[in-house]
Amino acid sequence: MAASSSKAHTCRPQERWKIALITGVVLIGLICHQGCEATDTDIALDAKATLNHRIQSLDLLVFVFLLALTVLTIWLFKHHRVSWLHETGLAVIYGLIVGAIMRYAGSSTPLVHMQVEPEGNPTYTDKLPPDTLWFKYPVNQTNTTKLPEGIKTYAYVFRGQVHDVDENEIDLKATFDPEVFFNIILPPIIFYAGYSLKKKYFFRNLGAILTFAIVGTTLSAFLIGGVMYGCAKLMPKYLSSSLSFLDTLYFGALISPTDPLTILAIFNDLRVDVNLYALVLGESVLNDAVAIVLSGAIQNYGEHYSNTGEFETTAFLRSMSDFFSIFFLSLLIGAAMGCFTALLTKFTRVRDFPLLESALFVLMSYSTFLLAEATELTGVVAVLFCGICQAHYTYNNLSEDSRQRTKQIFELLNFLAENFIFSYIGVSMFTFPKHHFDAGFIITAFICAALGRAVNVYPLSWLLNIKRKPKISTNFQHMLFFAGLRGAMSFALAIRNTVSDARQTMLTATSLIVIFTVIIQGGAANFLLNWLNIPVGVDDETEQLNNYQVHSSDGYLQDMEGGRGKTRISGGGTDGILDTPIEGANGSLSNGATGSHHHRRNSHEKAILARIWGNFDTKFMKPLLTHSRPTLLETLPNCCNPIARLLTTTQQLTQDGGEFRRVDSDSDICIDNDSVNGLTSQTPGGPGPAGGGQAPGRRNSLSRVSIRYTGDTHNLLASYRNIE
Amino acid sequence: MAASSSKAHTCRPQERWKIALITGVVLIGLICHQGCEATDTDIALDAKATLNHRIQSLDLLVFVFLLALTVLTIWLFKHHRVSWLHETGLAVIYGLIVGAIMRYAGSSTPLVHMQVEPEGNPTYTDKLPPDTLWFKYPVNQTNTTKLPEGIKTYAYVFRGQVHDVDENEIDLKATFDPEVFFNIILPPIIFYAGYSLKKKYFFRNLGAILTFAIVGTTLSAFLIGGVMYGCAKLMPKYLSSSLSFLDTLYFGALISPTDPLTILAIFNDLRVDVNLYALVLGESVLNDAVAIVLSGAIQNYGEHYSNTGEFETTAFLRSMSDFFSIFFLSLLIGAAMGCFTALLTKFTRVRDFPLLESALFVLMSYSTFLLAEATELTGVVAVLFCGICQAHYTYNNLSEDSRQRTKQIFELLNFLAENFIFSYIGVSMFTFPKHHFDAGFIITAFICAALGRAVNVYPLSWLLNIKRKPKISTNFQHMLFFAGLRGAMSFALAIRNTVSDARQTMLTATSLIVIFTVIIQGGAANFLLNWLNIPVGVDDETEQLNNYQVHSSDGYLQDMEGGRGKTRISGGGTDGILDTPIEGANGSLSNGATGSHHHRRNSHEKAILARIWGNFDTKFMKPLLTHSRPTLLETLPNCCNPIARLLTTTQQLTQDGGEFRRVDSDSDICIDNDSVNGLTSQTPGGPGPAGGGQAPGRRNSLSRVSIRYTGDTHNLLASYRNIE
Repeated sequence: MAASSSKAHTCRPQERWKIALITGVVLIGLICHQGCEATDTDIALDAKATLNHRIQSLDLLVFVFLLALTVLTIWLFKHHRVSWLHETGLAVIYGLIVGAIMRYAGSSTPLVHMQVEPEGNPTYTDKLPPDTLWFKYPVNQTNTTKLPEGIKTYAYVFRGQVHDVDENEIDLKATFDPEVFFNIILPPIIFYAGYSLKKKYFFRNLGAILTFAIVGTTLSAFLIGGVMYGCAKLMPKYLSSSLSFLDTLYFGALISPTDPLTILAIFNDLRVDVNLYALVLGESVLNDAVAIVLSGAIQNYGEHYSNTGEFETTAFLRSMSDFFSIFFLSLLIGAAMGCFTALLTKFTRVRDFPLLESALFVLMSYSTFLLAEATELTGVVAVLFCGICQAHYTYNNLSEDSRQRTKQIFELLNFLAENFIFSYIGVSMFTFPKHHFDAGFIITAFICAALGRAVNVYPLSWLLNIKRKPKISTNFQHMLFFAGLRGAMSFALAIRNTVSDARQTMLTATSLIVIFTVIIQGGAANFLLNWLNIPVGVDDETEQLNNYQVHSSDGYLQDMEGGRGKTRISGGGTDGILDTPIEGANGSLSNGATGSHHHRRNSHEKAILARIWGNFDTKFMKPLLTHSRPTLLETLPNCCNPIARLLTTTQQLTQDGGEFRRVDSDSDICIDNDSVNGLTSQTPGGPGPAGGGQAPGRRNSLSRVSIRYTGDTHNLLASYRNIE
Repeated sequence: MAASSSKAHTCRPQERWKIALITGVVLIGLICHQGCEATDTDIALDAKATLNHRIQSLDLLVFVFLLALTVLTIWLFKHHRVSWLHETGLAVIYGLIVGAIMRYAGSSTPLVHMQVEPEGNPTYTDKLPPDTLWFKYPVNQTNTTKLPEGIKTYAYVFRGQVHDVDENEIDLKATFDPEVFFNIILPPIIFYAGYSLKKKYFFRNLGAILTFAIVGTTLSAFLIGGVMYGCAKLMPKYLSSSLSFLDTLYFGALISPTDPLTILAIFNDLRVDVNLYALVLGESVLNDAVAIVLSGAIQNYGEHYSNTGEFETTAFLRSMSDFFSIFFLSLLIGAAMGCFTALLTKFTRVRDFPLLESALFVLMSYSTFLLAEATELTGVVAVLFCGICQAHYTYNNLSEDSRQRTKQIFELLNFLAENFIFSYIGVSMFTFPKHHFDAGFIITAFICAALGRAVNVYPLSWLLNIKRKPKISTNFQHMLFFAGLRGAMSFALAIRNTVSDARQTMLTATSLIVIFTVIIQGGAANFLLNWLNIPVGVDDETEQLNNYQVHSSDGYLQDMEGGRGKTRISGGGTDGILDTPIEGANGSLSNGATGSHHHRRNSHEKAILARIWGNFDTKFMKPLLTHSRPTLLETLPNCCNPIARLLTTTQQLTQDGGEFRRVDSDSDICIDNDSVNGLTSQTPGGPGPAGGGQAPGRRNSLSRVSIRYTGDTHNLLASYRNIE
């Protein structure tokens, strides 16, 4: 027909259709003698299954429309430069509205349940209830078939314990199995956090980040748990009796982690100071991991060890060792899988086929999650460290196409997942059947959450500031305190377990805290940044500069405005953010005259931990896992030469160092190796006087920096900032 | 710590850790007085839930590793240019191996079931069995708590009818709920098929494609159903008695659709003739849609209408009207959502934020599926037509970044989904518990499948060839017959319903047919293309040429080799593939002297259907939904000017036609509009003699073509070919 002329007159499809129809009818008429044994019950069951499927689709559709609406509104807000409400806040608000509509507008069909008992003489030989029940039900057959009035057997699958036998029918309107969050929604969010960590500043602030994340979160969890338990004694009887210390401790663990999404989106939009950015990002990413493992350990303690109801030191220690072993084994699995992917991409030429390469990348990352879950570790922690390794090693081996593709895919997944979870937080406030409002508990929870955050930030900052350079200024501390939004992880942990009144009250409190912090704190972040005089609109280069120069507030400002004209620092310039310069930066300038860049940077600038790791990474890990120079042939002792040759690719040997520099995704770690010399020699690094003539030295460092970082750190950053 | 100097000696994290630990211990010791009421049963249940989660993760992990392995092997095969086995075949083979290992190596824990009856005096007021059963079970409590030996109530959720009460325990090793295929695996595959349809050739061959897909599939389904039913009478008693004509008809419907994946991957790799490509792709994409609706209608007929067991004409007609209404309503919903997305992207500036834009695109496409499912239509059909509309309209409005991103994402999703389903077909041969081998049925099924395909291809080709120009040559017909691989859709439909012996036998037969056709036919396609002298290595431009020139095998070959030197036509040149030139092409050259390209192309070249649609599309749809010219201001009557102005964007008015041409994704449809004149006037289209001097005329058409098609058809094609 496609090529039939304008005068087509015979054998058009319609006629062929008729032929087919007639053939079909005749065939059926000739042969069909046998009917089906459908009963009324079958048809009703079928209709019910269809209805269930429709309702599920409808529920999901509501969320998808909600997300689409959020996307359009975000665009509108960005378009009109509205800053007092952020996208996650928007998702929550839309969720609340839709949840309220669903709650009060829709009618629900209650579930029918029936009490049953075993047939005949039951023998309970097993400790466990059976997996399935078989239930005979008389089938209601009204039509006139040959089949007798029959009894059919239906299978029922074990779901869980009924805690409140007098409970109303569970209304499952638009609620998801909580495990969905841990298995589908959180992994891409956490992986993307790891994959897009700004590694340079992350490693520079590693100590502070680890302190805040591990020590701070634990401290905050125990403090909140203790205080809440104390306060619970003053609460109504039914609550205080069902609230055990383990419960409040669990609450402490789940409310302690801060959420990276909102605050980072704002920081990104505003180009906030990079050290603050790294602190907040690193902390919030890691404390999610700490919180999930910690809450798991608390849960475990409750279920397995604390049988007598008394405090048991051995049980506590076992829980503690659980905590550490699970955390570090998960870390190990994640890192190992990341490195394995790097090896795969290095030693095969799969990069010739970007689609295959991207598929492999996604599959390996997902299998990390599954592997951790299958070995009873924590998948979310594993994917976090897998993401970090993928970004640190594998990313360098990928083809340009795959880099783009993997970044864009995970960016989109992350965006959809985070908006989904925040919409769901809003919707579930109204539709989730197991909320339990208790004003006293909620108010206490709010106070405790703030208290926990304060304990996390201020004392630890003070401790860190004893040795740390640059110090974390008071304004930074306030901002850190304020950046403690609670988010997806808290909610997911709270909704995971809602069996008791206590747990339901916790869920309600957590939901409210999340909603409040995301909308109010998220919305006010902008204003507060201004009020606390935290520099915004900072470029990468400026930040570099910021770190490498001798700190002098006046000169700093002058140079900023004169030399680059990009930074707008709000408020007085003497209100220095970094109170003291990095030691190494001092060295940089005093040693600048000698020209031995290599030596001075190596010896002073970085913390020991970062330096040891950096050396090891540059000498062994990177040459092994990526195409970077120096190769293992150069770094390994001579006796290992055959192995080193095996592990070194031709590409690695033939490329020149300069080109590699540019494709490397993070340069902070491998800053100490020799090839830096090759680069710095290109820059006009003339010796300058230490005091007054800072400018040439800085220009030098600046130009070197801009050469070194034109590569993929920029790309990553740019893609991260694409949201704006 | 990051900035601590090399001589850090106080307050290291370890010490802070200790402090935190001690604080925690003290706090717990002070406060913890209350234990948990964990019983042995609780702990055992918990352990069991954990185990189940581990097993699920492990199952999924097996598939993910399998996919990773497949990806690596595909790379190896491509790297070494192995062509006798294709990737989907590879996935199936790996699946078979792993399935066999899982079957014979692993031990499974059988499910425990218990027969129950209602407590007390049951009153069966409802037609339906209850949704949940509550079951009291004595809790086995061995530890010494204060709690008495208790009874707990557990909830059981309705699963389905037990058909065979004597059946062994269901072994659920590595099997998925069949609905997963329809809700998760198939939608991205089908959407991508629509999104990447090569629209130009698709519309040119629309008549043939529709005939093959709708008439052919129905014909084939009824034929297979009839023949199978006849043969079933010769089979063992237990099978023939359980095989109703509806069953065999259902089998006919599920085995009729052909799979686009494998054969198209091969065609893509080899750059096969584009008309053949379009026929195979269009047919296999559409017949999936036809088959799913047809099988649904057959199912419906069995369940709802055919109560008496006799053939009922009214019931049959109702089923037929079901079939058409579901098909066309699904089509409508898909198209409407696609157009709605186009409007959204046209009238907002969301394209300024590619992440938001891509998210919106994905969300709208997914909501099409959900909307169709929620309204009891067929989601898979809706996403297919949504994909076509998205490619036809929305794609033109997207930013460059979003085009890339959406193409790449759906390409990757499609790749993963198709490889997953083929791996699963392999694995499930061994692990799916409801296989039923019956040699007679399987052999008959193989014969019938081939027969059905033959009835689909040969008579319809003959019918089409009566009017069609260019005709479908005999070799093309053989290739079409041979390209009838069965795949994902057949398998998904077969595994959806496995309640009876007959259905289980069908599943086994379908699995075997899929495995056989994918491995054997897929592997031999290469060889066959060669043997049937079907041109491979054809470029887009060459194909254009192919269609526009006066057909003369010798001159064709000469020109090919002389002018472009790219086409390698295997076999004798006189063995013309297109037996007759397109009428319009004749006109093209004879009218070439007059220079009125516009008129000749408009009047002769295309089939009526395509022409009417093309005109309408260019005049109203494209101006409304995209930024294309002419605008509605030009095409609508004057009285509608205010509305037209409202629906026309500034961008549409200010851009020049030439630029638009380049960004338009498919140009065949809007070939008839005036702006073509603007372009052709740029090319040196001098009048040439009709006979001997073909070259200038063709060069002319060629250069115009290459201008017009430098846009996104190429991109789409390129991305589709990226797999190679």
